[in-house]
Amino acid sequence: MSKLVIVGTVAFDAIETPFGKTDKILGGAATFIGLAASQFHVDGAIVSVVGGDFPQSYIDMLSSKGLDVSGLEIVPDGKTFFWSGKYHNDMNSRDTLVTELNVLADFNPVVPTEYKDAEVVMLGNLHPNVQLGVIEQMNDPKLVVLDTMNFWMEHTLQELMQVIAKVDVITINDEEARQLTGEYSLVNAAKRIHEMGPKYVVIKKGEHGALLFHDDEMFYAPALPLAEVFDPTGAGDTFAGGFTGYLSKTGDYSFENMKTAIVNGSALASFCVEKFGTERLVNLSREEMYKRLQQFKNLTQFDIELT
Amino acid sequence: MSKLVIVGTVAFDAIETPFGKTDKILGGAATFIGLAASQFHVDGAIVSVVGGDFPQSYIDMLSSKGLDVSGLEIVPDGKTFFWSGKYHNDMNSRDTLVTELNVLADFNPVVPTEYKDAEVVMLGNLHPNVQLGVIEQMNDPKLVVLDTMNFWMEHTLQELMQVIAKVDVITINDEEARQLTGEYSLVNAAKRIHEMGPKYVVIKKGEHGALLFHDDEMFYAPALPLAEVFDPTGAGDTFAGGFTGYLSKTGDYSFENMKTAIVNGSALASFCVEKFGTERLVNLSREEMYKRLQQFKNLTQFDIELT
Repeated sequence: MSKLVIVGTVAFDAIETPFGKTDKILGGAATFIGLAASQFHVDGAIVSVVGGDFPQSYIDMLSSKGLDVSGLEIVPDGKTFFWSGKYHNDMNSRDTLVTELNVLADFNPVVPTEYKDAEVVMLGNLHPNVQLGVIEQMNDPKLVVLDTMNFWMEHTLQELMQVIAKVDVITINDEEARQLTGEYSLVNAAKRIHEMGPKYVVIKKGEHGALLFHDDEMFYAPALPLAEVFDPTGAGDTFAGGFTGYLSKTGDYSFENMKTAIVNGSALASFCVEKFGTERLVNLSREEMYKRLQQFKNLTQFDIELT
Repeated sequence: MSKLVIVGTVAFDAIETPFGKTDKILGGAATFIGLAASQFHVDGAIVSVVGGDFPQSYIDMLSSKGLDVSGLEIVPDGKTFFWSGKYHNDMNSRDTLVTELNVLADFNPVVPTEYKDAEVVMLGNLHPNVQLGVIEQMNDPKLVVLDTMNFWMEHTLQELMQVIAKVDVITINDEEARQLTGEYSLVNAAKRIHEMGPKYVVIKKGEHGALLFHDDEMFYAPALPLAEVFDPTGAGDTFAGGFTGYLSKTGDYSFENMKTAIVNGSALASFCVEKFGTERLVNLSREEMYKRLQQFKNLTQFDIELT
């Protein structure tokens, strides 16, 4: 097992879906990534920032999952980052209602000394300069994984490209991959992104699963077809957390092992969307995860006679 | 190996894509289905109709693939069904420019006597009454597979529902499944369609692959991610032809074998889109198919330790 550093937001979310709405609940990319990775009992540290309004009980819950929170800065007179959004009926699109950066506006990430030698770094969605700041504090990690989104392509493309050049794996959704490269075909988009730096490109297609590209190799992990998606918030982060958590646990960063890591990420994401926010991940049992992985196996494995 | 009856259009297509355009070339659902099924050297018969303008060379080509054409009616003073369409830049949508029914308007399908005892029937996209007419001529087939489209839902829903009630398998695309059932979730849509009759529901998602549903079981076959889709015309029919061709060849209509059948259908569809019309299917070698199936295996198979 290798150490894992997770940087990203720890936040309050207020969510409205066709199934209901929440007040401010626990959210944030680093939160979902951490909870997903903790399923593998990794030695992971969260690097983030919250305000004095952030409940100690949330911090205790993250600690209880085995996550190191010494890199979670608390700004006593500041307010925690807040996001509010409303999903449309098809759950595939949403409107952002409120974004209050608050303490995130001046965030200078500090990686705890004992995690500077971590082998795996998961850069959750954040300003590229913050992501870059974390990379610079690390002592030669073996695998740096980047998640980002269209917002940074539109507002801080130059900084984002600097980060992309320095990472081993990028996770990005299909529309963002097309936007970043100008290529409609995801095969061609992945080739362009390889040229920008990352040896491994993961393209997330939501309900249609995810593709992993490495040179001329490809792997396709489906999403589990679900009767109901209750709340998609955090599904992408959960996917990334499952992916990096599994890789940290196994310490094997090969393409073959990344296939299994992606299936684990997809399985965890399929739980995440079953309830609001982090609720389902917080209360996930080993047996449930085992059964879900078996479902993914049944869903995708087939016999073929190649004669 | 069991006998296969294929009903559907045999047609002229004129196609425009961002890569080029064609004059009238060979097309039609039964043509693509037949060419795909012929990859498995099945004993298949095409039931369709053409006009006096249809070249004998096309009929000879179909015969040379081992397809029985005694059920292909020729109306000497009639004209062959003609469709013309133009694809948009993303290849996922198209405009129909011309539809001339011609001899199809009065088509009364006649299943050749020696194929009335076929075990497998593939009802390609056509007026539901024609599909029903074929079912009624058969002596207790073991597997009837239906392909249809939104046009029939909008114009002949009652007749279509009669056909749906009589088939074992339906293949339908995701938007059509939603339209037919009013369910957004494909899992729920498949449940509603089960209730209409078919024990097996195949939902085609284009570049995102296909889902097979049977009671509470699911299987997900990806489409091969492609750098370039040259011409999507006939891909769905080719998929259906590969599916039924493989099932006819093996004579095994179990859920497990349907998984392999769908992967074969996806593999053939991935060839179909590489060139205009039927060109790629007509010239497909066994070795190419073998390699493609290996690619599907590499694309989807993973190791997972369930401990």
